Amino acid sequence: MKLYEQVAAELSLRIEQGYYRGNDRLPSIRALSREHGVSIATVQEAYRLLEDQGLVQPKPKSGYYVRPRPLTPQMPEISRPAQRPLEVSHWEHVLDLLCASEAPGILALGRGMPDISATTLKPLLRALSEGKRRDGLRGFSYDSLRGSPELRQQVARLTIDSGCQLHPDDIVITTGCQEALSTSMRAVTRPGDVVAVDSPSFYGSMQAIKAFGLKAMEIPTDPVQGISLEALELALEQWPIRAIQVTPTCNNPLGYTMPEIRRRQLVTLAQRFDVAIIEDDIYGDLSFAFPRPNTIKSFDSDGRVLLCSSFSKTLAPGLRVGWVAPGRYGDQVLHMKYVGTAACATLPQLAVAEFIAQGSYERHLRRMRAQYLQGRDHMIAAVERYFPAGTRISYPQGGFLLWVELPGDIDTLQLNDRLQSSAIRIGPGVLFSASGKYRNCMRLNYSAKPTEAIEHALQTIGELCIRMLREIDRVA
Amino acid sequence: MKLYEQVAAELSLRIEQGYYRGNDRLPSIRALSREHGVSIATVQEAYRLLEDQGLVQPKPKSGYYVRPRPLTPQMPEISRPAQRPLEVSHWEHVLDLLCASEAPGILALGRGMPDISATTLKPLLRALSEGKRRDGLRGFSYDSLRGSPELRQQVARLTIDSGCQLHPDDIVITTGCQEALSTSMRAVTRPGDVVAVDSPSFYGSMQAIKAFGLKAMEIPTDPVQGISLEALELALEQWPIRAIQVTPTCNNPLGYTMPEIRRRQLVTLAQRFDVAIIEDDIYGDLSFAFPRPNTIKSFDSDGRVLLCSSFSKTLAPGLRVGWVAPGRYGDQVLHMKYVGTAACATLPQLAVAEFIAQGSYERHLRRMRAQYLQGRDHMIAAVERYFPAGTRISYPQGGFLLWVELPGDIDTLQLNDRLQSSAIRIGPGVLFSASGKYRNCMRLNYSAKPTEAIEHALQTIGELCIRMLREIDRVA
Repeated sequence: MKLYEQVAAELSLRIEQGYYRGNDRLPSIRALSREHGVSIATVQEAYRLLEDQGLVQPKPKSGYYVRPRPLTPQMPEISRPAQRPLEVSHWEHVLDLLCASEAPGILALGRGMPDISATTLKPLLRALSEGKRRDGLRGFSYDSLRGSPELRQQVARLTIDSGCQLHPDDIVITTGCQEALSTSMRAVTRPGDVVAVDSPSFYGSMQAIKAFGLKAMEIPTDPVQGISLEALELALEQWPIRAIQVTPTCNNPLGYTMPEIRRRQLVTLAQRFDVAIIEDDIYGDLSFAFPRPNTIKSFDSDGRVLLCSSFSKTLAPGLRVGWVAPGRYGDQVLHMKYVGTAACATLPQLAVAEFIAQGSYERHLRRMRAQYLQGRDHMIAAVERYFPAGTRISYPQGGFLLWVELPGDIDTLQLNDRLQSSAIRIGPGVLFSASGKYRNCMRLNYSAKPTEAIEHALQTIGELCIRMLREIDRVA
Repeated sequence: MKLYEQVAAELSLRIEQGYYRGNDRLPSIRALSREHGVSIATVQEAYRLLEDQGLVQPKPKSGYYVRPRPLTPQMPEISRPAQRPLEVSHWEHVLDLLCASEAPGILALGRGMPDISATTLKPLLRALSEGKRRDGLRGFSYDSLRGSPELRQQVARLTIDSGCQLHPDDIVITTGCQEALSTSMRAVTRPGDVVAVDSPSFYGSMQAIKAFGLKAMEIPTDPVQGISLEALELALEQWPIRAIQVTPTCNNPLGYTMPEIRRRQLVTLAQRFDVAIIEDDIYGDLSFAFPRPNTIKSFDSDGRVLLCSSFSKTLAPGLRVGWVAPGRYGDQVLHMKYVGTAACATLPQLAVAEFIAQGSYERHLRRMRAQYLQGRDHMIAAVERYFPAGTRISYPQGGFLLWVELPGDIDTLQLNDRLQSSAIRIGPGVLFSASGKYRNCMRLNYSAKPTEAIEHALQTIGELCIRMLREIDRVA
């Protein structure tokens, strides 16, 4: 960690612990420089970072102040999914979500799409078109089965920030995170096996469970702490579970980041029952906390964690550049990758490798984290403003996805249908369950910079919810 | 078909049927113009096309002559694989083949790599780098689950040449042909099912059979006629076969093109036993015959044929742009594609669509067909020259792969090991069987323009074969 990052981390911790509170004036640059024995420039850099993270705000001629946190509305309750392994359904609704956002003129608030319009992505466009000229024939050739060496080297370097020590050969490049997840799942299970999942859980891995003839054991999940280890332990005792699939950092859709102690406990549990852990870290680098949390993989002593990620949320999904660090399951994952797609497109890999090597990745991340943090608070405020009383909202620790739990019996599939005439689409909660739970929930995307159109859409959704609530009351 | 293509096709048929033989003088341009009632320019165009296809050659001031065919050496015999469904093995040898060709300085004669250095590919490089600027953000976005509409439209148009009438929505773009094949196989089978395959058969689909917990029923295959329909019928009666996987056009590795009448019979057979046909057409557009043969799909009246292809052999494998026309299995294929990779990289798709729309694809194909035809004859001649007496060689009808059957008990895995010191790799025959057959066979690639290095490599292989044959004799 660099000097200014250390100073920032220390200040961030004091704010976190309540030592400094909202609107408190923070120590002057000069004072901090003396206290830490670092240069004025370093402290300035540290404050700039905290400002990017949305933790502090400058007041002209007065110094830095702690940014007041919005009053957090009530969080969703801990989930209570079914107590047995289930087959996954709802493919038709997932398909509907995927296809709906393809139509022009639709405000697709349900999909996991990052903001790809930031100017900090420009060097990537450049790397793509210059790469053509420089790497010409290289880009036309089959890439190495494991993926381009340049990219694997950069990925290995990046994972140091999440506490890992990986060699480029420990990494397999994939066609997006979806291929990382599906090859991992295929590698560690056989048809008929049970996979334990956090719940609600990403529909992409749920549908993989369905496609591979597996069953999902949905584990109660806390919107702050993550998957319940107690419930997981019970399930491991009771069912023939072969793998645990979790998204512990900036969870999709709940937004929580699982505390480190619980990550360590999860590894111990997996060791005790000798099961694999498939860790989806796709939003990990978009964590609002600095430094970013360590992955579960970083606590993995015997290679049972398959760490899956991609650049689809941090950079651009259209590149389809993902990766997996499969631990002891390397051979099986490689076989599954070969069988599934043989190799990844070469040029996007080379462009991403160059983008990272230039330092453009870190710069872009800093910017997007700040934007998404603002987006989160903005959208939470709008949901509070427009949605019916009793609505519960997640408090994401990173990424750009919000989980909203509606009061009463509002069915978000129905809500989505009725929003069609307004050209708005949400992510119905039922997609995130194997068993038809979360019918009163939805996922929303706050990646775009706040606009009137989005504000208006949230108002429309909120008003429709209130209307539906009244209709339900009338019937009852 | 254009006018000049009709004239060319007619001449080509007469040559094929022996009406004109090697070194025969063909009708003058003026005579043909009168006969067909077309312009002089049209006949000139037709002759140019036949010249590209290697069927005729001009003699200055004398006119066009039929190009003499090389004396064909003996073909391999019809294959005799095991008479029961088998599990597929030999992944480690496939992996070895894939990884060996990644090493620099290796002459990888075993791999299915096209020549990507042709100048007719330049517009594709241009489309890729200009696409960056024009489609900027489009290339960063998730592509449609089915694939870019522009590309699907072009693919639908191309398939007219193989007798199909497909709508762009009948097509799903995939990450290379491998994803087309594997999603197709997953869509029509369940673990434990049996898949009938031509034999020898492409290792990529064989490994998919392995990965999905299926068994391969290898069917005897004739090096001229293709899969034995008689043996296939017996197998269909005897075993619970769910799908037939074949490469009927420019077969990999045998090079044959199955006659049209047998294609129709294959469809009838599949209907009678109600099984799906997975048709791998990846080399189809590189057929030396003009017009290219109709696909099995073109005779499919009830949607049971899944037609798989890609631009990996015709353009460049590093693009990873393939496609499948899944017929009645569209929903299942789409689900498998979503689960496997979610979407394909966007930019390569847009670039390929533009390349085809410009007419560059046809131009490039014409050139590559001519080059590969020469490459075939050149390599056959070299193998005849250097390899031991009794060597049998396939006579490819398109593509760029040669199948060589060695006499005696030469083990090509061993041969490959011993070639390592000469930095030469071949494709050992055992990769193309589930059951360890074809140990005395190898696949060679003639896509590159003939060079001294390749000639020398073939000499080295041939001499080593002769030495190994003597060693075997001494032991016996």
